[in-house]
Amino acid sequence: MWNLPPSDTVLHVLQLVALTAQAMTAALAAGRRSMDWMGVAMLGCVTALGGGTIRDVLLGHYPLVWVQNPFYLALTGIAALVTIVVARTVQRLTLAFLVLDAIGLVVFTMAGCDVAWQMGASLPIVIVAGMITGCAGGVLRDILCNDVPLLFRAELYASVSVITGLFYATAFGLKLNDELWTVLTFVLGLSLRLLAIRYKWEMPKFVFNSEQR
Amino acid sequence: MWNLPPSDTVLHVLQLVALTAQAMTAALAAGRRSMDWMGVAMLGCVTALGGGTIRDVLLGHYPLVWVQNPFYLALTGIAALVTIVVARTVQRLTLAFLVLDAIGLVVFTMAGCDVAWQMGASLPIVIVAGMITGCAGGVLRDILCNDVPLLFRAELYASVSVITGLFYATAFGLKLNDELWTVLTFVLGLSLRLLAIRYKWEMPKFVFNSEQR
Amino acid sequence: MWNLPPSDTVLHVLQLVALTAQAMTAALAAGRRSMDWMGVAMLGCVTALGGGTIRDVLLGHYPLVWVQNPFYLALTGIAALVTIVVARTVQRLTLAFLVLDAIGLVVFTMAGCDVAWQMGASLPIVIVAGMITGCAGGVLRDILCNDVPLLFRAELYASVSVITGLFYATAFGLKLNDELWTVLTFVLGLSLRLLAIRYKWEMPKFVFNSEQR
Repeated sequence: MWNLPPSDTVLHVLQLVALTAQAMTAALAAGRRSMDWMGVAMLGCVTALGGGTIRDVLLGHYPLVWVQNPFYLALTGIAALVTIVVARTVQRLTLAFLVLDAIGLVVFTMAGCDVAWQMGASLPIVIVAGMITGCAGGVLRDILCNDVPLLFRAELYASVSVITGLFYATAFGLKLNDELWTVLTFVLGLSLRLLAIRYKWEMPKFVFNSEQR
Repeated sequence: MWNLPPSDTVLHVLQLVALTAQAMTAALAAGRRSMDWMGVAMLGCVTALGGGTIRDVLLGHYPLVWVQNPFYLALTGIAALVTIVVARTVQRLTLAFLVLDAIGLVVFTMAGCDVAWQMGASLPIVIVAGMITGCAGGVLRDILCNDVPLLFRAELYASVSVITGLFYATAFGLKLNDELWTVLTFVLGLSLRLLAIRYKWEMPKFVFNSEQR
Repeated sequence: MWNLPPSDTVLHVLQLVALTAQAMTAALAAGRRSMDWMGVAMLGCVTALGGGTIRDVLLGHYPLVWVQNPFYLALTGIAALVTIVVARTVQRLTLAFLVLDAIGLVVFTMAGCDVAWQMGASLPIVIVAGMITGCAGGVLRDILCNDVPLLFRAELYASVSVITGLFYATAFGLKLNDELWTVLTFVLGLSLRLLAIRYKWEMPKFVFNSEQR
């Protein structure tokens, strides 16, 4: 996450926007659990930065980005706190936040792939690193809110991340034009996620009731 | 876990079988929570590989095994997905899976001890590393399924792991014949676990009700 | 945590006392969930040592303290087990344990700041490291007990840790007399926490009910 070369200014700005959006939706989840302001700020940071953190800990990729650059802590913590004031507005903008969250999913996935790739990881690990970066923050949020992670039950989310990563990572092998491939991946991933939301595409569920034998 | 020298073929095969079995029982737990296929695969991977992962992160033992060898991700993920089709059969084979899980507990514990030992850890840490490898995956599964970890409440499981590790680790000091000691430990640990299941041996519970003073 | 130079004998003793106290209150939480003895010991260890462990993993600060010195595992595990016998007494001493827990919060926060400072971290990370050391163990305890972490909902706890860390860390910049500053920070942090308990100071809560639009 957020490790792209400075030239990729557009992607970098999209990441900051997406981090902010994820911290703000996490703040709403905190409000539903009546957390105090400190808890709201912490849940915002953990949700927005948790995916990249888990990826880096699993890959042994130190120092963590927010340790090196605490600006990310400030950004996400403050975004969560601001949400307390503008909660009604945030909720009314559900659609905007869904789009921002989708942008985050795709951008974080790509950045996660980049990190693993630069560390010399194999293709499957590049894709898994992308998925963890894109999805694990939400899992942490749900664990801290004492829910079964939505990720494991809801519409195409992790799957979009995997497809995005797969598409993006093949470029590393093919050595296609970087910029073009980045744009293509972004458009593909975002379209896929938005279409999944719009048409309520879902993975089949595995419903197992151990009682009925 | 899975870090024994290639010569220990039997142990290695037992580990693969046990990883598969743990991923399949995790898939049943995912089904009881109506997770989608992606969630089933992820819960399978996390449960089967989580213990070794936590051990390696705590010991700073990089790269993680599944990062170095993504075959383990494929094995456990696919095992979990296959379970969706054969769920009824898996459930009918409860006994077989209990035995496979017991084998996993013992084999993972021994492999965890090996890793810590090779890193030059002290005896208590060797045993703790074995216990984490054998037990922590199930704790992660229960947290993601939003349960109080069964490990903390159920019959002899962690205790079997500790006793197995203690017995196994003393060999490092005694420099006994490796092969013999490995077999002995395996038989001891497995017997202990199966007897605990058969006769419902339990640790005493600490039941504390703060209301009745 | 527990990383101060040996000369700081008083702080070191306070840390041992506070570790013991945290393990004992964790044991009561385990008892409320009817965990078995093994679970009680494990929850005690995880709660008392988890904050320092998470800090070290996030900072890449290896080896972990309890890996290097398993005495801490023994201390906290045994403290938790002893609690099974003396649970009623522990509960009657609520006030004493609140004070011990407050001491732990302040002392662990300071030690966490020390570790990050010695690693050359920036001021915000020094404070965050202190907060994680002081607070994260309780969050792990609540996750394992399947609760929404109390930290995110309760009276001034994390905030006390942040203020303590902020006050303490400014000394690193100001290069004030070490001993004096340590004592001042300790008194400030402890007073703040005890006053917060006594007068039920609370952070404002963010209560957000998504139903009422």
